[in-house]
Amino acid sequence: MISLCYAYRGCGIFLIMQNKANFEIIKDGGITSPKGFAAGAVYAGIKKQSQGVMDLAVLYSEADSAAAGVFTTNKVKAAPVLFDQQNLKKTGKARAIIINAGVANACTGKQGMENAVLTAELLAKKLKIEPEEVLVASTGVIGVQLPMDKIEDGIEQIKISRSGGHILAKAIMTTDRKPKEIAIKVKSGNTEFTVAGVAKGAGMIHPNMATMLCFLATDARIEGKFLKSALKKAIDLSINLVTVDGDTSTNDTAIILGNGMAMGDKGVIEQGSRLAEAFQEGLNRVCLHLARSIARDGEGATRMIEVFVDGAVSQDDARLAARIIANSPLVKTAVHGCDPNWGRIICAAGRSGAELDPEKADVYIDDICLFKSGTPLPFDKKAAADKLGGPEVSLRMDFHLGKASATAWGCDLSKEYVTINAEYTT
Amino acid sequence: MISLCYAYRGCGIFLIMQNKANFEIIKDGGITSPKGFAAGAVYAGIKKQSQGVMDLAVLYSEADSAAAGVFTTNKVKAAPVLFDQQNLKKTGKARAIIINAGVANACTGKQGMENAVLTAELLAKKLKIEPEEVLVASTGVIGVQLPMDKIEDGIEQIKISRSGGHILAKAIMTTDRKPKEIAIKVKSGNTEFTVAGVAKGAGMIHPNMATMLCFLATDARIEGKFLKSALKKAIDLSINLVTVDGDTSTNDTAIILGNGMAMGDKGVIEQGSRLAEAFQEGLNRVCLHLARSIARDGEGATRMIEVFVDGAVSQDDARLAARIIANSPLVKTAVHGCDPNWGRIICAAGRSGAELDPEKADVYIDDICLFKSGTPLPFDKKAAADKLGGPEVSLRMDFHLGKASATAWGCDLSKEYVTINAEYTT
Repeated sequence: MISLCYAYRGCGIFLIMQNKANFEIIKDGGITSPKGFAAGAVYAGIKKQSQGVMDLAVLYSEADSAAAGVFTTNKVKAAPVLFDQQNLKKTGKARAIIINAGVANACTGKQGMENAVLTAELLAKKLKIEPEEVLVASTGVIGVQLPMDKIEDGIEQIKISRSGGHILAKAIMTTDRKPKEIAIKVKSGNTEFTVAGVAKGAGMIHPNMATMLCFLATDARIEGKFLKSALKKAIDLSINLVTVDGDTSTNDTAIILGNGMAMGDKGVIEQGSRLAEAFQEGLNRVCLHLARSIARDGEGATRMIEVFVDGAVSQDDARLAARIIANSPLVKTAVHGCDPNWGRIICAAGRSGAELDPEKADVYIDDICLFKSGTPLPFDKKAAADKLGGPEVSLRMDFHLGKASATAWGCDLSKEYVTINAEYTT
Repeated sequence: MISLCYAYRGCGIFLIMQNKANFEIIKDGGITSPKGFAAGAVYAGIKKQSQGVMDLAVLYSEADSAAAGVFTTNKVKAAPVLFDQQNLKKTGKARAIIINAGVANACTGKQGMENAVLTAELLAKKLKIEPEEVLVASTGVIGVQLPMDKIEDGIEQIKISRSGGHILAKAIMTTDRKPKEIAIKVKSGNTEFTVAGVAKGAGMIHPNMATMLCFLATDARIEGKFLKSALKKAIDLSINLVTVDGDTSTNDTAIILGNGMAMGDKGVIEQGSRLAEAFQEGLNRVCLHLARSIARDGEGATRMIEVFVDGAVSQDDARLAARIIANSPLVKTAVHGCDPNWGRIICAAGRSGAELDPEKADVYIDDICLFKSGTPLPFDKKAAADKLGGPEVSLRMDFHLGKASATAWGCDLSKEYVTINAEYTT
């Protein structure tokens, strides 16, 4: 029961791992909190000045870093995504990432790929590293070529520093209202390292990635194959369960760099070890924080919605139903209007494709049960409306068919969403 | 090319059939245009008075009728859906349909099913027919029991007449702004009959049915098995390709009654005959008209969006991509803001799951090509924005991978949608 209760609060994944590691959020931490990482950003003129003060950012590791990435499942992949996939496959390493906002470099053909390659070369030259050690990421409008003269000037001007994490977090924002960043210190036995992350989200966010850029850094030394599987696991439990509007972008990218600088002459962390568990847990916490921040900051959102589905026959069913509920425009507008119209929740679950028997299912808004075993219950409408009015709304279903559960995150749908998206390029 | 061009305008399905039948839209026609059909409606007090003047309607056939239905694929099925499915399976016949708005009778347990049965019995008694000859349909709020005393009084008061079609069309509206009805006279050789339909749509409309009620009537005499397959085919080509907000309801129902009263002593129309083709074509036209009317009248919609996907590897892929594009919030808001941000169209196609190679694909807004074979084209932004500003917006993709095509219909996403749905039950 405790594990369910915790899972329902979005933290259950941590309870499974019984290691004694200690996790501490670093005050005012960011992507440059781990040892040996530096960052910086400039306004290069890619975005209109009014859209934000910076649009070109760099993350850099002083030492060689293992690197891994997970990318959009959209069949239309932006040039930087294809570039990174090739580079990571070849080397499994990277020392720098260059990120621009304003132009997505998607649907830009051969020229787009040449521009991605050139961007990496320009940064490599400046940092005196190899072009193969550079990854690129872009977010913005589709179908527009990168202004390479501005990118070149921007790279020239950019200054990176050990305290540049917060600057990077701001520079990668598009319609985000707040930067999203966190750093966690992990202690396990006599080993200590830091895991940190920064993300942009807001529009177009959907399960299985979105115009979501997420950069993670650690000063732990992680074996390459494990780094990749750990990243995939953490993203699956967090960012892949966030939905803002059901659209999935051409540019979604999550990259992690691990430079090992906190570990001195200690060996590499490999899958299955106690340190590996501690690292995975730290990474999960970082990604979960970023996922919740993305949901909370969805375009036009006034509140975050956390959907917990329990009692499903399989994990896939639980994830599917939770995401479909979180993504239903009718659920989202009902939450926006503080309308406890719970029929929309079970209706969304019913069309999700997950196994569901309405005669057995329960529906809750927070701790108020509205529907039990196929029958609507009388409930205090005012109390339920109040629960929907808070900054974090909890919706819950128990299918009573099996033991699988999942949590997904979304946000309400407001008129502001329409305003933002009706006037994006013009 | 002509067939493509026609398909693109949403009429291609008619060209395939080379019969010489003649189709004429009956001026001011409706569901009671075919011989022997009568209808009526009252305000029974199920809806709040402010929501509409009528909420209980009846369609009746003077003679025995073959009947067929297609229903929601949602795992949560309302009591009337389960009731009708049982009845149609048993007899394949029906002479009357009773429809209420205001309460969906979904998620209402045993009591809900008893109320559906009782409703049918009350109407049968009034019309002096068997309860097995009555079908029921409901639309409205989920999880609320039907007020059976009001239903009983309403049935008592209801007056049906041969001119009651328009009254029924108005009575079944919920958030619809306009009634949706049509009747078409079909002439083939020396045989003449009428096919008519009426629908409600507006919110929650999505491919594979939605809170969409559609009633069809014909005075042709159609063999039962063919009637069912003809209905399924017509709905698949029309209403199942309409999307308003991606939600699919617990109550979606399309029912057809065929009483044969226009056919005198002529025999029954069976699959494969020339008359069967004429009937199918007439039914397709009726359903297509209703589908387009539903899209045009989506909640908060200011314009209809028609999406045509060509060159897909399979029909399933073409349908999938067309529907996902028509349902993308980012496409819908771009259309609402007259923003020719075509990247959102190809992005939606890319995440649809359909086979797609962006290096081969074209994107059009109306007749303006914006993206060809992987490369963005320069285009007149003002002209493209103007095309998006019309009452019917045409978006088009050619995948250049195969020969399959499909058309889907949707509408733009406005602030009005949020207003309507944020305050539905309260």
